[in-house]
Amino acid sequence: MTLKITERLIMTPGPTMVDPRVLQAASNPILGQFDPEFTKIMNENMEFIRRAFQTKNKWSFPVDGTSRAGLEAVINSIVAHGDKVFIPRIGRFGNLAVELATRAGGEIYTLDGEWGQVLSQEKIIEKMNEIKPKVVIFVHGETSTGRLQPMDKIGAAAKKIGAFTVVDAVASFMGVNIPVDDWELDAVIGGAQKSLSAPSGITPLTFNDRFAQEISKRKRVEAGVATKDSAKADDFITSNYLDLTQLMDYWSPARLNHHTESTILNYALHEALELILNEEGLENRFENQKKQQTILKNSLRQLGLKIFGDEKNEMPNMVAVEIPSNVDGEKVRSVLLNEYGVEISSSFGPMAGKIWRIGLMGYVAQKHYVLRFLSIFSQVLEQNGAVLNIKEALEYANNAYKK
Amino acid sequence: MTLKITERLIMTPGPTMVDPRVLQAASNPILGQFDPEFTKIMNENMEFIRRAFQTKNKWSFPVDGTSRAGLEAVINSIVAHGDKVFIPRIGRFGNLAVELATRAGGEIYTLDGEWGQVLSQEKIIEKMNEIKPKVVIFVHGETSTGRLQPMDKIGAAAKKIGAFTVVDAVASFMGVNIPVDDWELDAVIGGAQKSLSAPSGITPLTFNDRFAQEISKRKRVEAGVATKDSAKADDFITSNYLDLTQLMDYWSPARLNHHTESTILNYALHEALELILNEEGLENRFENQKKQQTILKNSLRQLGLKIFGDEKNEMPNMVAVEIPSNVDGEKVRSVLLNEYGVEISSSFGPMAGKIWRIGLMGYVAQKHYVLRFLSIFSQVLEQNGAVLNIKEALEYANNAYKK
Repeated sequence: MTLKITERLIMTPGPTMVDPRVLQAASNPILGQFDPEFTKIMNENMEFIRRAFQTKNKWSFPVDGTSRAGLEAVINSIVAHGDKVFIPRIGRFGNLAVELATRAGGEIYTLDGEWGQVLSQEKIIEKMNEIKPKVVIFVHGETSTGRLQPMDKIGAAAKKIGAFTVVDAVASFMGVNIPVDDWELDAVIGGAQKSLSAPSGITPLTFNDRFAQEISKRKRVEAGVATKDSAKADDFITSNYLDLTQLMDYWSPARLNHHTESTILNYALHEALELILNEEGLENRFENQKKQQTILKNSLRQLGLKIFGDEKNEMPNMVAVEIPSNVDGEKVRSVLLNEYGVEISSSFGPMAGKIWRIGLMGYVAQKHYVLRFLSIFSQVLEQNGAVLNIKEALEYANNAYKK
Repeated sequence: MTLKITERLIMTPGPTMVDPRVLQAASNPILGQFDPEFTKIMNENMEFIRRAFQTKNKWSFPVDGTSRAGLEAVINSIVAHGDKVFIPRIGRFGNLAVELATRAGGEIYTLDGEWGQVLSQEKIIEKMNEIKPKVVIFVHGETSTGRLQPMDKIGAAAKKIGAFTVVDAVASFMGVNIPVDDWELDAVIGGAQKSLSAPSGITPLTFNDRFAQEISKRKRVEAGVATKDSAKADDFITSNYLDLTQLMDYWSPARLNHHTESTILNYALHEALELILNEEGLENRFENQKKQQTILKNSLRQLGLKIFGDEKNEMPNMVAVEIPSNVDGEKVRSVLLNEYGVEISSSFGPMAGKIWRIGLMGYVAQKHYVLRFLSIFSQVLEQNGAVLNIKEALEYANNAYKK
């Protein structure tokens, strides 16, 4: 059972391909979790995460788990039993927010938008003012439909009524600008395995002092490390592993011995953020994502395919394409993966069988990958019954890159 | 802020040094989580975990998080609000079990043994029969004191009264034999970063059908993937990320899209288990751990140091040594790490400042590492005020390896 991995061309909304330099970083020797050389890397990761989120938030660190762990850490720490939680919802990951807040004991209020569209911020704010929730949770990049929910005004409006905003920016992180402080967002969760192009299993997040003070009311200190001054909240946070108040003591000079931080995923996170922040540059990254996505999208149109959803509010790191009515979407996916080693995604719920989701997140958002993909995808589609303008589309794409 | 890692000689009870082949495995390209090539690796990891625990348990898989996540997943899934939980406790990690069971809402009963000793199984069983708990949680390898709690009789006794056993075998896993089925243990959690010598961030565990049936009573299916047949338990499991009933649907042909499995940590886990099961052999591994630990321990005695704790019940992958009264234990640790790149551990609670914990877990349990360590450690100790028989001790160790 020796490990044998085939290199794939991964054109999904995650997990994405990872720069070989990031994978190499993950193969470095282990360091002890309290080794000054490792705590230096942890501190640098905190600073990198601040820069990525453009925030001064002291509390900016990764959680040792996949994106869902980051979401649960934030939601489970802020939502206490019986708290009102408002969740505007435009797709599958809105459902996940409902699920996590329900498990935390929240009283859930939703506002549902049509799948493929976004909700207007005015509508969200109006409903929020009516409900007066303690917490508002929404998804920034909704990959089930490929939409990017506008959110620059929601943070300030929530603050006005004393509510806390929690943003699932897992799929948009490092694909589009998220100025956390300017937009007055209280807690934001990014993803590793999307546009950051790091391996999954570690999740960067950030939250401000207002949020930290609120969750600290529910702090519980464990037997064995508790001192006589340790406060014990009656309504304590139910998770220990994903308790942000514990993680604050771990990711600060207190260095609480909470868990053994994932060594090699911190190495990978460090290298992935280093490449974006210090080599490529944040602005270039966002520009490139948009440029590549535009070329891919327009080329797919040239092929004769229909692009799904509200184009004014689309994610810049994926394209949702309607599956032609005479084509078996799953068969195409299977031929692509099994014969060509190329992976694209289907979708969920009402979108299942209707759209393909083609990701070009982070590392894969490069000319040669897009051209390779177009070439293979169009031919496989044609072999499966679609009538396409292949020559024109490839000519279009090649020309677009020459501009 | 370019990543620069110094290779250390890590002689702590975790995280431990990792075979370069395992780190290389972690640097393989990413595969999608539903790519048949990846699900094959997942299935092989399940089979490897079964073999490592010598169990037929269908439910044998890793959790994407550090050991504490594995413990919380098991405890949070089985302990419902108000359930009686019995926790025999002989050290710091017993406190952790109390903490996790308290967060899950359990009504806690403890039986405290002296630190450095173990509890007799008869005493544990007697107390258990008196309390009649739903769940019994105990630590197998208690690294805070270096003790190995005997547990071959507890599982059967618990079953007799309908209780479920949960074993924290994080630190003993792959260092000593744990025949899960023979000992009739219901749920056992292993560790990656101990004698398995894999990077931390992923946690192998196993549980039997009886346990699976019990936790399934508390299963909740999330909105968006729920069908009309989905049962909704009133007293549902409060975590979603660490909900074993969700993970059962993820780690089975249902392939619930629960989270994006940590790709490279699965590669590392695969390689680490492959090396033990198919190259070294389980029995050889356990024999080698005991042999190396015996040589190290006796050599430290030859040096003139006192070994801490009940020798009949010691872990075979670490040695707890008393810090000589005229020596500053933290200064020695600091010189070892900062000048020689050698790491050993201090301890917790009542043991803090009294003992050093020297680990030789998994990969580091090799002759050349033990001899290097003895040579460096003895000289640093002497420079810091200890009077030792260095020549005799090294001669002893060298001879011991010749036998």
